[in-house]
Amino acid sequence: MLAQEDIRALEEIVGKENVSVREADLVAHSIDESWMEPHLPDVVVWPVSTEQVSAILRYANERELPIVPWSGGSSLEGNPVPVYGGIALAMYRMNKVLELREEDLQVVVQPGVVYAELNKQLRRRGMFFPPAPGSSEVATIGGMVANNSSGMRAVKYGVTRDYVLKLQVVLPGGMVIEAGSLAKKTTSGYDLVRLFVGSEGTLGVVTEVTLRLIGLPENVAVVVAVFDTLEDATNAVYECVRYGLDPSALEFLDELTVRATNEQQGLSLRIKPTIFVEFHGNEAGIAEQIEYLRELCEDNNCLDFQMAVTEEERERLWAARRDAHDSIKLSHPGCTMIAGDICVPISKFGEMVSFVHELSEREGIIIYAFGHAGDGNLHTEAIAWRDRPEIFQKAVRATEKIVEHALDLGGTVAGEHGVGWIKREFMVREHGPSLEVMRAIKRALDPKGIMNPGKIFPSN
Amino acid sequence: MLAQEDIRALEEIVGKENVSVREADLVAHSIDESWMEPHLPDVVVWPVSTEQVSAILRYANERELPIVPWSGGSSLEGNPVPVYGGIALAMYRMNKVLELREEDLQVVVQPGVVYAELNKQLRRRGMFFPPAPGSSEVATIGGMVANNSSGMRAVKYGVTRDYVLKLQVVLPGGMVIEAGSLAKKTTSGYDLVRLFVGSEGTLGVVTEVTLRLIGLPENVAVVVAVFDTLEDATNAVYECVRYGLDPSALEFLDELTVRATNEQQGLSLRIKPTIFVEFHGNEAGIAEQIEYLRELCEDNNCLDFQMAVTEEERERLWAARRDAHDSIKLSHPGCTMIAGDICVPISKFGEMVSFVHELSEREGIIIYAFGHAGDGNLHTEAIAWRDRPEIFQKAVRATEKIVEHALDLGGTVAGEHGVGWIKREFMVREHGPSLEVMRAIKRALDPKGIMNPGKIFPSN
Repeated sequence: MLAQEDIRALEEIVGKENVSVREADLVAHSIDESWMEPHLPDVVVWPVSTEQVSAILRYANERELPIVPWSGGSSLEGNPVPVYGGIALAMYRMNKVLELREEDLQVVVQPGVVYAELNKQLRRRGMFFPPAPGSSEVATIGGMVANNSSGMRAVKYGVTRDYVLKLQVVLPGGMVIEAGSLAKKTTSGYDLVRLFVGSEGTLGVVTEVTLRLIGLPENVAVVVAVFDTLEDATNAVYECVRYGLDPSALEFLDELTVRATNEQQGLSLRIKPTIFVEFHGNEAGIAEQIEYLRELCEDNNCLDFQMAVTEEERERLWAARRDAHDSIKLSHPGCTMIAGDICVPISKFGEMVSFVHELSEREGIIIYAFGHAGDGNLHTEAIAWRDRPEIFQKAVRATEKIVEHALDLGGTVAGEHGVGWIKREFMVREHGPSLEVMRAIKRALDPKGIMNPGKIFPSN
Repeated sequence: MLAQEDIRALEEIVGKENVSVREADLVAHSIDESWMEPHLPDVVVWPVSTEQVSAILRYANERELPIVPWSGGSSLEGNPVPVYGGIALAMYRMNKVLELREEDLQVVVQPGVVYAELNKQLRRRGMFFPPAPGSSEVATIGGMVANNSSGMRAVKYGVTRDYVLKLQVVLPGGMVIEAGSLAKKTTSGYDLVRLFVGSEGTLGVVTEVTLRLIGLPENVAVVVAVFDTLEDATNAVYECVRYGLDPSALEFLDELTVRATNEQQGLSLRIKPTIFVEFHGNEAGIAEQIEYLRELCEDNNCLDFQMAVTEEERERLWAARRDAHDSIKLSHPGCTMIAGDICVPISKFGEMVSFVHELSEREGIIIYAFGHAGDGNLHTEAIAWRDRPEIFQKAVRATEKIVEHALDLGGTVAGEHGVGWIKREFMVREHGPSLEVMRAIKRALDPKGIMNPGKIFPSN
């Protein structure tokens, strides 16, 4: 609980107009897109410079006040929910593109820059930052760095972690560090950049990010392939990965997801297990890959194999896939979705999808299954209603069972959404004694435990 | 200094036959391939199991004895030189391929497996582990993990760090942890795998490594392009990277290096600044890339543009490039080579090469320049003789100036060889306050400082 003098101290650092204890502001920073109940911060602070962030962290550390870095709010595991109150540090006004170094394919941004906005600017210069999270229109670079976000393009290009060259980070005591290098490769000491990326605001606050960029592909092609059975579709996915195709996206949608997508996005896909496959490259190279994909799909009893020819068609398909989460929500008015995000070794992807479908049947819970199949990353959405506690509990429990099954198959509890609050109790089972190493690092960098407390680490 | 009782305790753990204080064994573990003077360990121990490593580390931690993990010995910065004596922990008898999971393109190995041996086995199954260090025939997977090694293929495929899914690590107190996941993507807690990779044995001992593999490319093509001037050659390199070519290797050799390569490897390349470019992919895709490369080279006044047609020709060229280090050594009998390994943003690569040539001229020191140009990673070899101290000091100082210039250009002191002992004093300048974070992590994981003491961190 913050005292009046704390509020005044924060006002002195950032100015009265950038501090609020208004109910509406507290509520706006009390939830993310997960199913968690709201937890209000004591105060919302909007810094606009590294110096301000440093001063805030120095003060908060002295007074042992929780700091919860806040950005787009589109996370799905309660990552920025202020479970112990304290200061919601709203970073989204630090939203400038500071420097575009075209000659080195690098860009320096503040954490509040929105992913889609950045890519719009980069596109004009023939470059892009590839991870492509589903929440592209709201997700900020700072949030992506905190959660090591990825999405549809990770199968070819990798995740956020693979593109961060340098980070400016403010540590709990207020010290400002620059981690990483502008060189593409470095073996100079411990890889702090990759430690901070994905640490979900539990080690410090990112105030500047230098990203490595990629040139836009010469050509793009998209294929939609429809299968009669789940097994055929997931086998086709497996063979794409196993036998050397190099797609820039390889997405799977189950029948339910296709139906919701058709209904909400006005598409008319066949209501069958479906894969979307995208290729980036030169024309000749892509043509050869598509022929190979066609054979591979035919071998797996493909019912329909269509290429999206125009850019408009392609854009419509990807928008549909990207907005699957929203389409599902709109299909069940008033529902709460219990989101799942596991990732398994690619040979286990089909088994994982079958498990979800059987579980849904057995428990009588609607569960959608779709995801970044090429990486083995499956998303699920179990449909629940807050005013029907029995279904709600069943949907939460079903999603936990999905996580447990992923661990049984050698997978991870979090493919791309992070651990946040919701998955913290699985950490012991996934990591065993190596969780103690994570705790040791946390203690070393944040000895008073002020940074986003309650996240990642289990209660015991 | 170890006492007799320490030797007896070690013998009890691994058996008498796996402990040695013989002069020849101590000497064999006192130097690497760098120019450092030898430093003898007190004892060499050859464990054969994780349990033994754990027992050794528990004992050493209690008694505060230095542990220096040892493997192929091909490092170039004094990384495994026992500067404070103690136990040379020779890991190279733990050299089994434990499990090949073809269905998931994964392999589990012990740290002593040699890189080239592993790839020979994988090749039969149509797979490979791409980093390709110059020392492929001796470098072990454990050493590559410790130093985050890479090489010619990093420009397309990335470095060792990008391929390690899981690590079994023994910590100083003897605790055994499993870090990472078998899933291709994970955002489950701190990225310990990438922290241990590249930590040069200063945090723990790696006893098992799970690597992600890649399918062998359908086709391979190699081009050798020769230029009249350094500037033309480095411009061509820059344009390859900047304008979207996707080579699997992009190597630069200066005139001196070409000459040494011709003389020692029996090639007859023109003695001019030269680039080697390799492509992996399907036939049509490669053909298009080569046409693009040809235009780009012609625009940069290319004198000669040859494709290596047969696999034999290709193999000969790559062997020549891989063995450049040895060819140079053979060209100066009795010399000591002062190796350099900096990496700069790609737009600065040409400037870096020119600097090296000017420096060589100015100081009257022979310096070879070559390297993984596509990543901005330049290797230098300054030629010195131990019995000519003035030249020796000049060559060392020149190499330091190269490192300093790389930092001036926004680069890093270590592209792929690590920091070891030789570059530790540059760490303050490269990392500033973030070095304090590295130190905090070191203290948290190795509070008594037994792991490879003296490495990475500067003396003050």
